[in-house]
Amino acid sequence: MVGRVSKEAAPAMIAHWLERQIAYDGSQLRAHWILAETGIAGDAMVAFLGACRVTQDEMADLADLDGPGIASDQMLHFVWECFTETGLLLAVHRQRLLSATALEVLRALAPTAAARREGDDIYVGEGKLSISIATASPVSSLIHFALNVTRTGAPVRVACLEELSIDSRRFAAELLSRTVSEQQSIAVARSKVRAKGEWR
Amino acid sequence: MVGRVSKEAAPAMIAHWLERQIAYDGSQLRAHWILAETGIAGDAMVAFLGACRVTQDEMADLADLDGPGIASDQMLHFVWECFTETGLLLAVHRQRLLSATALEVLRALAPTAAARREGDDIYVGEGKLSISIATASPVSSLIHFALNVTRTGAPVRVACLEELSIDSRRFAAELLSRTVSEQQSIAVARSKVRAKGEWR
Amino acid sequence: MVGRVSKEAAPAMIAHWLERQIAYDGSQLRAHWILAETGIAGDAMVAFLGACRVTQDEMADLADLDGPGIASDQMLHFVWECFTETGLLLAVHRQRLLSATALEVLRALAPTAAARREGDDIYVGEGKLSISIATASPVSSLIHFALNVTRTGAPVRVACLEELSIDSRRFAAELLSRTVSEQQSIAVARSKVRAKGEWR
Amino acid sequence: MVGRVSKEAAPAMIAHWLERQIAYDGSQLRAHWILAETGIAGDAMVAFLGACRVTQDEMADLADLDGPGIASDQMLHFVWECFTETGLLLAVHRQRLLSATALEVLRALAPTAAARREGDDIYVGEGKLSISIATASPVSSLIHFALNVTRTGAPVRVACLEELSIDSRRFAAELLSRTVSEQQSIAVARSKVRAKGEWR
Amino acid sequence: MVGRVSKEAAPAMIAHWLERQIAYDGSQLRAHWILAETGIAGDAMVAFLGACRVTQDEMADLADLDGPGIASDQMLHFVWECFTETGLLLAVHRQRLLSATALEVLRALAPTAAARREGDDIYVGEGKLSISIATASPVSSLIHFALNVTRTGAPVRVACLEELSIDSRRFAAELLSRTVSEQQSIAVARSKVRAKGEWR
Amino acid sequence: MVGRVSKEAAPAMIAHWLERQIAYDGSQLRAHWILAETGIAGDAMVAFLGACRVTQDEMADLADLDGPGIASDQMLHFVWECFTETGLLLAVHRQRLLSATALEVLRALAPTAAARREGDDIYVGEGKLSISIATASPVSSLIHFALNVTRTGAPVRVACLEELSIDSRRFAAELLSRTVSEQQSIAVARSKVRAKGEWR
Repeated sequence: MVGRVSKEAAPAMIAHWLERQIAYDGSQLRAHWILAETGIAGDAMVAFLGACRVTQDEMADLADLDGPGIASDQMLHFVWECFTETGLLLAVHRQRLLSATALEVLRALAPTAAARREGDDIYVGEGKLSISIATASPVSSLIHFALNVTRTGAPVRVACLEELSIDSRRFAAELLSRTVSEQQSIAVARSKVRAKGEWR
Repeated sequence: MVGRVSKEAAPAMIAHWLERQIAYDGSQLRAHWILAETGIAGDAMVAFLGACRVTQDEMADLADLDGPGIASDQMLHFVWECFTETGLLLAVHRQRLLSATALEVLRALAPTAAARREGDDIYVGEGKLSISIATASPVSSLIHFALNVTRTGAPVRVACLEELSIDSRRFAAELLSRTVSEQQSIAVARSKVRAKGEWR
Repeated sequence: MVGRVSKEAAPAMIAHWLERQIAYDGSQLRAHWILAETGIAGDAMVAFLGACRVTQDEMADLADLDGPGIASDQMLHFVWECFTETGLLLAVHRQRLLSATALEVLRALAPTAAARREGDDIYVGEGKLSISIATASPVSSLIHFALNVTRTGAPVRVACLEELSIDSRRFAAELLSRTVSEQQSIAVARSKVRAKGEWR
Repeated sequence: MVGRVSKEAAPAMIAHWLERQIAYDGSQLRAHWILAETGIAGDAMVAFLGACRVTQDEMADLADLDGPGIASDQMLHFVWECFTETGLLLAVHRQRLLSATALEVLRALAPTAAARREGDDIYVGEGKLSISIATASPVSSLIHFALNVTRTGAPVRVACLEELSIDSRRFAAELLSRTVSEQQSIAVARSKVRAKGEWR
Repeated sequence: MVGRVSKEAAPAMIAHWLERQIAYDGSQLRAHWILAETGIAGDAMVAFLGACRVTQDEMADLADLDGPGIASDQMLHFVWECFTETGLLLAVHRQRLLSATALEVLRALAPTAAARREGDDIYVGEGKLSISIATASPVSSLIHFALNVTRTGAPVRVACLEELSIDSRRFAAELLSRTVSEQQSIAVARSKVRAKGEWR
Repeated sequence: MVGRVSKEAAPAMIAHWLERQIAYDGSQLRAHWILAETGIAGDAMVAFLGACRVTQDEMADLADLDGPGIASDQMLHFVWECFTETGLLLAVHRQRLLSATALEVLRALAPTAAARREGDDIYVGEGKLSISIATASPVSSLIHFALNVTRTGAPVRVACLEELSIDSRRFAAELLSRTVSEQQSIAVARSKVRAKGEWR
């Protein structure tokens, strides 16, 4: 280790694509699920394909409890767990930034789509393309973000990646890559900024 | 106060447009400058027009010290100070989300522009449209974000709002409004989320 | 929002009086109970009338487990939930300040009563007038504070508001109002104070 | 140390009376002043008598900068420094609780005085009895609280301990003692409370 | 309390030896177990002798779930609970420092033993002498550290205090004493250090 | 990045040996000195050889201000800056763990030396081998730890690496390597531990 010089800070997190399909029911959004699934320890984001049907017990957002339900036949899922700086306010900011980045990816892959972000949701025209939640476990913060791949199985009017002719794996690769780069550059930015004096 | 019911949390911050032009030199990015300038106490963002010429002493980003300098003849400035949850990592996330939102405003006001975000910077084609820094005072976190209004006065190749036919005041109104809404919805989101159990 | 100027920070919390009687058994002191009961999201305090009989399972203070029990036929209850800055030490300070403020209200409404505060409890002569606990949920801090309205139903010698000829609703209105004002002025105070330099 | 059993937590802070008079000018409210003055390391509150004349440079509350000045010929001063949990919001709560406790001491020593608390200030009738500020150093939080002993030397209408026939040393002893007891009981309370489950 | 001067901060924690044997199964590593067992409130470390057989449900380290099990016929146990500054990263540092200190005690009592530390474990030659875990409860951080007294009952090759001719009680007394002293001196060190200026 | 799987968390910090001699005067223990000296951004520890003469202005430990001075003709220096989790209490724990690890290195390289640790200092017999301080900048925590290479130039009785026949570079390589490994394993440990339930 001695003698090693890097101009950048150590990588801030690890990204990973899961090959196997996983039916998401909300129980995946728990502490150490990524560790159990992949063996990765520490801050990490995984992506995978699979159906979505969140049970009432696993709904983290209380606003969803009396809603139409959270379901889709096929979604592209992202699960992100952070063990460093686990505050819920920071987690929600990470979630919003992830949504904003997903919109940027969408615009790069489908430039003519009428896509927009509303809070943590992405819409295409009148159709809701994504779902998302940020929450806390006793030892970490957790974020789920998912986009419809197909139109079927959802209880509300939705948009989907297939209609936009976006390949799910390409979208995943792009969003994972941009998120790792952004977290890395955030860590570097924090390490290079001077504090401002109070007395002047 | 008794009997009052609101479905939403109290406003998370205050936004304000400053009518007078202010030549930004970096000293504005200090604790309580907004309070001294406007009388607003607490988390707030102000916007104003003015030249930009940051002195070496006021450069918060150490990466800028040996750079070409930070200057422009006319910019649209945003200064944001937060007294609650002042951690630097959160401040950098707020800054990135602000940049992403600015890009969204830009796309709404100039849909055909080839704009993109790189970290906290916005580019239009090869031209750099914005500058930004997030830092900490002993009592608060501080963010400066500014966009070139005109092309003149900058030491590097830049883009500007005039070339994009974007009215600066309209841009300011839109970005201030979206930022307040986003912070408000973040506060509500945090208050409505259930924690995930570790043991299940 | 643009152009709005306020000399004060945004309201720090919301206060609300619940008209219906609620039998308090300790389960009300949980995350999001106020949200479920009133639709209010964010930092808030509610007040209501009702019996009190805390079950063993719901006792947050371990010191109470082997005690005479916590019960009264009619109490004036206050439940306070904070989602911002949820540390337990701060919560206990908020609780103590609430008790001190309650004593100040009591003295304003019943100037000749021999009332005093001991930690988080208020006594009138030998009789215990109040009960209180501060605790933490995974996403918030929680405070319960309640005063006997009548003398009956308690396992220990108590004082009560009726004997002091204090109207419960008037007491509630006054304590809710003072607490909101105090939290508001605390937020403003924090935003107006300069840090002190170390090197001089 | 082995075998020692205490039913209570370790003392939370140290209190100390300074015999010599000190002319308070604001520079005493800095990190490690108590250590330099007394040799006490760690969380501590000291009390002393002396004139008060705060210079502009030392005013921590920005609201005072354009005010009538902060001065009195003789005051009873309290300086409190905390190295554990140094957040400014907690410091302001400690300050408010200190003011509330001072009012309780005042009522015990002068039961017929028309005293009341407004935020961090104590009034007797129309006269302002006290001044106070809470601030932060880079390593600690700091509180100054002081009461007029005499009426002379103040730029505004004041009340004073002499007119209330209150002995300054007795007041100091009582407030120091109650503050140490309260902080001790707060530490114990925090260590005895169970967290509330979210899922029930 | 007035007039008391101490050159040192208040004691940072309490140490206690439990005379009775306790069969450790992991359930002892929970919030308030020390309080229930001893009546001690606040930051504290207790030590005791007893068998060790940790159930799957109580294993805090996920790496142990598929391991050979955690068991021994007789161990010297240390349980440490901290209510102040409960972050998990700090808890792991406390745990490592405890292991390092245990190694120092071992070398003082058995100078010729080939002992070494690997993370939170102590080895003597090829034999594992100790087990340890640091975790978090909703209100505190918790550490378990234990050394084999005898060789029997363990699922892996172990070392033990008996083979090193080390008396368990003497070891306990020494480690408890050093830990209390170290935490005390850490508290004092934190209270005596000046912050470093950024602008120079 | 997609598809990458690591069983371990990302590296927690960077270590670096500086070839050139640097005369340490205390000004090196400031925010971003490592960045300016090496270009490394983020949590890092550097080691170098050089004289030591700390000026009064740069003494961070107030206890040293009236002492015999801090000086030596040749020392092996370690400077450690952390931007993540910058609390001073954690910094002092890191410092103590560094001292304990340095003692372990010393015993590996000089098994017969009568070395011991007292807080953050290492002694060999009656001679003080090391000096150390942990402090905070506005954006980071900072640790200096240094060992005498030669006996000359110190104001007190010292021990030195030369008398112990320890090569300074070998010592540096070993301590840097162990510290990086320990921080890495601490990060992994934190990411693998389950929280303990309160209610059971």
